[in-house]
Amino acid sequence: MRLTQFSDYALRLMMFAAANEERLVTIDETAKTYDISQEHLKKVANQLTKTGFLTATRGRFGGLQLALPASSIKLGDIVRATEPDFAIAECMGDNNKCRIASRCKLKRALKKALQAFLETLDEYSLQDIALDTELFSIISPHKMP
Amino acid sequence: MRLTQFSDYALRLMMFAAANEERLVTIDETAKTYDISQEHLKKVANQLTKTGFLTATRGRFGGLQLALPASSIKLGDIVRATEPDFAIAECMGDNNKCRIASRCKLKRALKKALQAFLETLDEYSLQDIALDTELFSIISPHKMP
Repeated sequence: MRLTQFSDYALRLMMFAAANEERLVTIDETAKTYDISQEHLKKVANQLTKTGFLTATRGRFGGLQLALPASSIKLGDIVRATEPDFAIAECMGDNNKCRIASRCKLKRALKKALQAFLETLDEYSLQDIALDTELFSIISPHKMP
Repeated sequence: MRLTQFSDYALRLMMFAAANEERLVTIDETAKTYDISQEHLKKVANQLTKTGFLTATRGRFGGLQLALPASSIKLGDIVRATEPDFAIAECMGDNNKCRIASRCKLKRALKKALQAFLETLDEYSLQDIALDTELFSIISPHKMP
């Protein structure tokens, strides 16, 4: 059981933006910091901007920043905005072919478990898992001399 | 976020065995009932036998049956026995390449959420989600005249 890479990258981008709340961050530096695909990250940033988690400033000195204070952004909400679906089992997705789906009681249990998962993530704000800006400076190869 | 097909099939096989507790069920009829791959189901059955959820009787009239009463089998335990890992994000798996993993606080939140997911599934036994044997007879094409 795992989140999509899209959600994983979304959480990373949001954490990087939270660690640099006083300035704009760019896709380029975020991708280099984590050593991940800039192209993928761009799509993630678009989604996070569209769903109101980030604001984008265009232009040469443009970049991204949190649209809300880190303390108001729940981890569950980020994941809800980035996961394509929450089809824990086939019967919960659009392409269900399981023949017992209409009568099956398993779905109810899986839905309740999923709800518990997301509600637990909602107990954490981006502020709660914040990291020092310094940490990112240390790990980021493009900032090394 | 989703379970593997392996876990999905494991839950289906366990439900089918639970609905037919008084007799042995075969891989062949289970695969036909759900219209799923017999080969995949065989691997699932091996894993469930190895981990003590099913007992297998060999021979011409052999088959599978629940190793314990349905009321003692928690859904969370089935999933724990069949998911290859619970690497919700890259940092929780064997192939972590995320550079902030050693200092990241996100992992703790994800682990707690996963725990809530599994504990909720543990609130349900196989008995709680049991279906009538009749339902399976209706949907099973190989039992039709």
